[in-house]
Amino acid sequence: MRVICYASNIHQDKLKDMTYKKLVKQIKDKKSFLCIGLDTDITKIPQHLLKYKNPILEFNKQIIDATHDLCIAYKPNVAFYEVDGEKGWKTLSETIKYIPDGILSIADAKRGDMGNSAKMYARAFFETLNVDAITLQPYQGEDAMKAFLNYKNKWSIILGLTSNSGSNDFQFQKVKTKPLYRLVIEKCMEWGTKENLMFVVGATHEKTFKEIREYCPENFLLVPGIGHQGGDFDKIVNSGINKDCGLIMSSSRQIIYASNGKDFAEKARIEAISWNEKMKSTLKMK
Amino acid sequence: MRVICYASNIHQDKLKDMTYKKLVKQIKDKKSFLCIGLDTDITKIPQHLLKYKNPILEFNKQIIDATHDLCIAYKPNVAFYEVDGEKGWKTLSETIKYIPDGILSIADAKRGDMGNSAKMYARAFFETLNVDAITLQPYQGEDAMKAFLNYKNKWSIILGLTSNSGSNDFQFQKVKTKPLYRLVIEKCMEWGTKENLMFVVGATHEKTFKEIREYCPENFLLVPGIGHQGGDFDKIVNSGINKDCGLIMSSSRQIIYASNGKDFAEKARIEAISWNEKMKSTLKMK
Repeated sequence: MRVICYASNIHQDKLKDMTYKKLVKQIKDKKSFLCIGLDTDITKIPQHLLKYKNPILEFNKQIIDATHDLCIAYKPNVAFYEVDGEKGWKTLSETIKYIPDGILSIADAKRGDMGNSAKMYARAFFETLNVDAITLQPYQGEDAMKAFLNYKNKWSIILGLTSNSGSNDFQFQKVKTKPLYRLVIEKCMEWGTKENLMFVVGATHEKTFKEIREYCPENFLLVPGIGHQGGDFDKIVNSGINKDCGLIMSSSRQIIYASNGKDFAEKARIEAISWNEKMKSTLKMK
Repeated sequence: MRVICYASNIHQDKLKDMTYKKLVKQIKDKKSFLCIGLDTDITKIPQHLLKYKNPILEFNKQIIDATHDLCIAYKPNVAFYEVDGEKGWKTLSETIKYIPDGILSIADAKRGDMGNSAKMYARAFFETLNVDAITLQPYQGEDAMKAFLNYKNKWSIILGLTSNSGSNDFQFQKVKTKPLYRLVIEKCMEWGTKENLMFVVGATHEKTFKEIREYCPENFLLVPGIGHQGGDFDKIVNSGINKDCGLIMSSSRQIIYASNGKDFAEKARIEAISWNEKMKSTLKMK
C-alpha cells in the first residue's frame, strides 16, 4: 500500500520501514535485544584511526561490522555529531546509511517542538536521514508528538523516565497521586500504539519497571543505564520483559570503548557477545 | 578575564558573548524588544530566489539586511534547517555568521539531554555554531541544564510555558498546588541567574504573565505567539514588562512572509517597523 507522508507528500514506500513484526522477528532470530549506542567522541576513539579522512565514520563502520549479528539496533547520539556542525551531520547520515537493512536505526536526538516545527523535525529524521526511530521530548504535549506518530512504520521513542540524576527534578513530581513520568506514559499511549510508540525508561530506576508494565504492558521500552550507570540486567528483565520481549537494552561506552587500541572492534565484539549470551538465556527461558 | 569553557577547554574569549548589560543597552538604544524568527521554508520563500545557489541563505540575508536596525535578536528555528541535513546545517551556520555583531543570536533548537550529551550539545551550539543563546527542554532536570549554564555570557532559554495547544497536556498539570510550568521556572531559577537564564512563555497564555512575574521578576522572557497565534501585545506588555524591559517578543511568519514577491524584504521591514512603533511607545512610557 502506498502511503502519503503526513508532512511532505513524499511517498513513504521510498523510506526505510520497520514494522513491529520485523522488529520482533529480528529479536527472536538473533536471540538478542541489544542496542549499541554510537556516542562516538573523537577524543575517545583509538589514535590509529586519526589517519583516516573521517575517523568517526571509520570507527562506526568497524564497530558495526564487528557487532551487527549480535544486536538488533544502533543508536547514534546526535549530540556527538552536531558538535562538528555540518560535517558531523554528514557523518551521522553516512553512519545511518551503513547500518545494515533490517536493523533498527534510532536517532537519539531527543527532539521536541510544536506543530509546524515538529513536522520539519519529523521530515529531517524520518525522510532526510531516513532513520527508523527517534527519541522525543514530551514536554510540549500532543501536537509535538503527532507529526512523528503520523508516519507509518516509523517509531517515536518518548522520554518516559530518564536514567540521569536530573530525572528527580520533574519526572518524579506527583501530579495528583501519580508521578509525572506515569502521566506522560499514559497520555502518550492515547496518541500512538505498540506499533509506533516506545518509551525510554532508564535502568537506574529498577523498581519502576514492574509498575510501568501494569499500565504499559505492550509497548517496547528502550532501556539505557545498565552497567556503568548502575542498572541491574536481571532485575530489569524480570520485571520489564513481555511476550514479544518488549525491551531494547542500550549500551554505548561499555561496548564501543571496550578497548582504545587497534583491537577496539574485536574487543567491542567480545563485550557485545557477553551481553548477547545473557540475552540468549533470558529469551530461551521464556 | 580569560575563562576556560566547562565543556571543551577552548578559551571562551574566542566566542561571541552577550552580557545582560549589552542586551539591555541594545533594547534601550533601538527602543525595540523584537526578535525575528527565521523559520525559513523553501516552499514559502519568493520564487525568484530559487535561482540563487542557496535560496534560503539568500532569503535570510535579505531579511537581516532589511530589519537589523529594528530588532534586537534573530532566532533561526533549527528544525527548518535540519530538514536539509548537512546542507541545512551549513545554511544555519552561515545565517548565524551573517547576524551582525551585537544582535542576540538564538538557536531555537529545543535541545535537552543528560550529562555528557548535554555537554556535546552545549559545545555544538555555543562553540561550533557560536550562537549567543539556545532554547532548551526542561524534562531531564538539572544535569541537562548545567552544561549550558556553565558558559559565561551565553544564554539558556528554557521552555517554561509554550504557546501550543499541547501545552495543556503536561505543563498545566498541578504538582501539589502549582502547575508544572511554575515548578519548572522556580526550579530552573535555582540553577541560573538573570544573566544567563531566560524562559519561553507563550503569548497565548496572557493571564499567566502577571503570576509569573511574581516569582520570576527579573529574568528575560522570550515570548512567541503574538499575532497569528492570538496573543495580545498590550496585555502581555502590561503584565510582563520589568525595569530592564525583560521581554523579547518573537515574530516569525508575520514578518518574514509579509510578501512572497520580489518586495519581500521591503514588506518585512514595513511589518517590523509596525512592531517597532508599538515597542517604542511602550518603552517611552516606562
